[in-house]
Amino acid sequence: MNFIQESNPAEALRAIFRKHASGVSVITMLDSDENPVGFTATSMTSLGANPPLASFNVASGSSSWPALCAAKYVAIHSLTIENVDLAKKMAAAHELRFLDNDWKRGPHNLPIFQTASGALIAKIREIHSVEANAVVIVEIEEGLVGAEGNPLIYHQRAYKTAVEVD
Amino acid sequence: MNFIQESNPAEALRAIFRKHASGVSVITMLDSDENPVGFTATSMTSLGANPPLASFNVASGSSSWPALCAAKYVAIHSLTIENVDLAKKMAAAHELRFLDNDWKRGPHNLPIFQTASGALIAKIREIHSVEANAVVIVEIEEGLVGAEGNPLIYHQRAYKTAVEVD
Repeated sequence: MNFIQESNPAEALRAIFRKHASGVSVITMLDSDENPVGFTATSMTSLGANPPLASFNVASGSSSWPALCAAKYVAIHSLTIENVDLAKKMAAAHELRFLDNDWKRGPHNLPIFQTASGALIAKIREIHSVEANAVVIVEIEEGLVGAEGNPLIYHQRAYKTAVEVD
Repeated sequence: MNFIQESNPAEALRAIFRKHASGVSVITMLDSDENPVGFTATSMTSLGANPPLASFNVASGSSSWPALCAAKYVAIHSLTIENVDLAKKMAAAHELRFLDNDWKRGPHNLPIFQTASGALIAKIREIHSVEANAVVIVEIEEGLVGAEGNPLIYHQRAYKTAVEVD
C-alpha cells in the first residue's frame, strides 16, 4: 500500500478534502425582516429527482444560520468562472454581500444574482443539526436558467474551472 | 433578468445540475457477509471539522443500499483523473466492481482501492431517509493519504479535471 496513514481524524479530513474538488454555489434567502442573506457554499448536491431534492451543509455558527432557520425558501445559484468575484464576496464580510447592484428580487422575493448561470428556487423541507453543523434538505419548485459557462470549482483553496482531458 | 423560467421542478433540477460540477469519490463498505460493496458518488462533502464529519447522498433503491444500512464503517476514496476507469466501473454493473486486482482490505477490513489519491475511514453516524433517497452522515476516524494528482470532476455527463484560470 502506498498510502501514508494519518491517524489524527481532523488532519485526515483536511488532507483528503484538499484533494477533493467541489462545485461552487451561492445560496440566498430572506431574514425575518425580508432582508437579503446569503453565502457561498461548496456542499450543494442533488438528492433525488422525484420529487426533485437537493441538500447543502452549513455551520450553525455562520452569520446566515439564524435567517436559514426562519426561512421558508432559498435560491441556489449555480456559478461560472465569471462569477469568481461573487463567490469571494459571498464568503467574505456578511455586511457587504448585498451592497452592490448585482441582484434583484425574484420568486418569493428571494435575492437573485443576475450574473449567475442559473438559480433553483427551493422550499426548505428539513434541517438536521449534527454537532455544530447542519444538513439542509430542500425541494425544488422552479428554476431560472441562464447562460452557459465554464463551471466554478473550488480546489486546494483556489477557484478553478473544469476541462475535459484528451 | 436574462433568465429563462423553468416551471417544471424536475426539469429545473436537471437544467441547473447540468451546469454544476462535482468532485467524484468512490465509497466502499462491507455487507453482512463481509463482502465488498461500493459505488461512485458525486455528493461527498465536508460537514464540519470538530469532530470531523462528512456527508453523502444515496438512492435507497441502489444496489449498495442494503449493505449501507447494515454497515458500521465506510471508506471514502478521493479520485484523480487517473482514476476515471475506476469511477466508471464503480458506477456500472455492481457484480463487476470488485473482480479486478485493484483493491486490498484496509482498516475494519474495508476494501481500499490502491490507486486512489487517498481514503477517509469513517464511522456511519446517521442516515436520514428523504423520499427515495438518503443523506448519510459519517465521522472520520483516520485517513490514508496517497499521491497528489489532478482531481476527478463530473460535469455535463463527462469526467473532467480542474484547472486554474489566468
